[in-house]
Amino acid sequence: MESSDLALQGLMLFLLLFLMGQANVYTRAGEKRWSGEGTNPHLESIFLGRCNEYISVVNPELSKKNCSAIWEAFESVVHKDPCSVLPSDYDLFINLSRHSIPRDKSLFWENNYNLVTAYADNTRRLIPVTDMLYGRVGDLINWCRQENGSGFDYHSCPTVEDCENNAVDSFWKRASSQYAHDSSGVIHVMLNGSEPSGAYPVEGFFADYEIPNFQKDKVTQFEIWVMHEIGGPYLPVKLLKCLDYTAHADCIFNLAAESTQQRFPSLFGGKWDPSLLFFLFLALASEIQL
Amino acid sequence: MESSDLALQGLMLFLLLFLMGQANVYTRAGEKRWSGEGTNPHLESIFLGRCNEYISVVNPELSKKNCSAIWEAFESVVHKDPCSVLPSDYDLFINLSRHSIPRDKSLFWENNYNLVTAYADNTRRLIPVTDMLYGRVGDLINWCRQENGSGFDYHSCPTVEDCENNAVDSFWKRASSQYAHDSSGVIHVMLNGSEPSGAYPVEGFFADYEIPNFQKDKVTQFEIWVMHEIGGPYLPVKLLKCLDYTAHADCIFNLAAESTQQRFPSLFGGKWDPSLLFFLFLALASEIQL
Repeated sequence: MESSDLALQGLMLFLLLFLMGQANVYTRAGEKRWSGEGTNPHLESIFLGRCNEYISVVNPELSKKNCSAIWEAFESVVHKDPCSVLPSDYDLFINLSRHSIPRDKSLFWENNYNLVTAYADNTRRLIPVTDMLYGRVGDLINWCRQENGSGFDYHSCPTVEDCENNAVDSFWKRASSQYAHDSSGVIHVMLNGSEPSGAYPVEGFFADYEIPNFQKDKVTQFEIWVMHEIGGPYLPVKLLKCLDYTAHADCIFNLAAESTQQRFPSLFGGKWDPSLLFFLFLALASEIQL
Repeated sequence: MESSDLALQGLMLFLLLFLMGQANVYTRAGEKRWSGEGTNPHLESIFLGRCNEYISVVNPELSKKNCSAIWEAFESVVHKDPCSVLPSDYDLFINLSRHSIPRDKSLFWENNYNLVTAYADNTRRLIPVTDMLYGRVGDLINWCRQENGSGFDYHSCPTVEDCENNAVDSFWKRASSQYAHDSSGVIHVMLNGSEPSGAYPVEGFFADYEIPNFQKDKVTQFEIWVMHEIGGPYLPVKLLKCLDYTAHADCIFNLAAESTQQRFPSLFGGKWDPSLLFFLFLALASEIQL
């Protein structure tokens, strides 16, 4: 073997090791510290835009709210260690952004985000927490501080699997508690009957942070809708689902006028599971004596 | 009459005239120059928030877009005289914010804003112009410059009744033209059959700025839905309307499975007005030879 061959082999080995080292560094830099999505880019702009749109377009009665102050209260919380954010840390944020919910307009839910959003229609029909000012600003986005730094972590954020006291879960615990506390009249609840683990999560925001915060002297009635995927029995709000399955047999309209009485058995009969209702009322009754 | 009485009367007259003068000034200051709503407060924040939300949450494929540059291009147009804004003034704004529309996803409409928005579901089903980046930033808001000043006019803005070349109408003319130009495949059109002046406005954004801009080599089919208020004949998308009229006879579901064939006559039969379809196709055919 010539010395030039040896030199070439040596160079190639060096290059290979160098590139492997580079790849390793790259993997480490791209590694996610936490299991959740990172902070959304442009968080401040999105937050302020949503807040200002809410107080000037959606609900101009709130035009006196100060979105910059609300953002500062929110941002100061997120400056805490990403696993040490408590619901109460959002107290100032909630106090600044809080507003009343019209009677009979509350809509609670579990495992039904898309249907709830479409049905509520930007506060027109009902007003779920994500259509309140304080919920709207955090809807569908993530945020957390870097673990060892002062800026936002755009790569990953902790979920409940990483640590309980993460910035996003604590935000929704605080927002949900306030929302339940301020709700009055008829309380609408939309659950998902097609959820394999059960329509009523025994542990969840509704059970843990909303039911305990209802004010028994303000709540008159619970209206619980258990939604099923297309193919199950019907409930009125399931009409929305037919938009995507217009050819399905269950979505065919009966053009001949029928008496409205015929509809109601399907609402509360059919595959409705009475034990679920019983269970729900048990859960509710254990918290508030209606 | 004593001189003191005269002095008192004089003082009261002075005060009365002074107050009337004040009231007059107040009326003039509160007077609306134009017949339309004024610029939305927090316009820049709303615009930037919507833009950043769109490129980071709704469509992250657009994350390379620069919302600050898009805002600057938009704002520079609005600095023109409020009655001298041309559609072409928005060219730079459109060039910076423009993006492609997936084939078969376009949804045009007239007099159907709420239904279109709910049905499109934030780009999930179809993508009307208000769900494109360049349409989203201007959705449901107003803007114009002061007539004799450099700032926004927050009291009133010109509508088409005041002057044709107003900032908002020219914006939608430019955006609609681009949207039609970039549309391909099946073109969905949602018209309002309950509109007293007719489902198809002979003068309107669709007729004047969209139909002329379709690219005949890219469009394969038109699917025209004429929606009627509840009580009229059914079309699938009208399911949405039943959400607000669940007890209406027309909204009653037929739980027994029927063959899907039964549905289709109701779609294209019933009170569908064939002359309207003919008229539409005439209008379309005159612009593009399908």
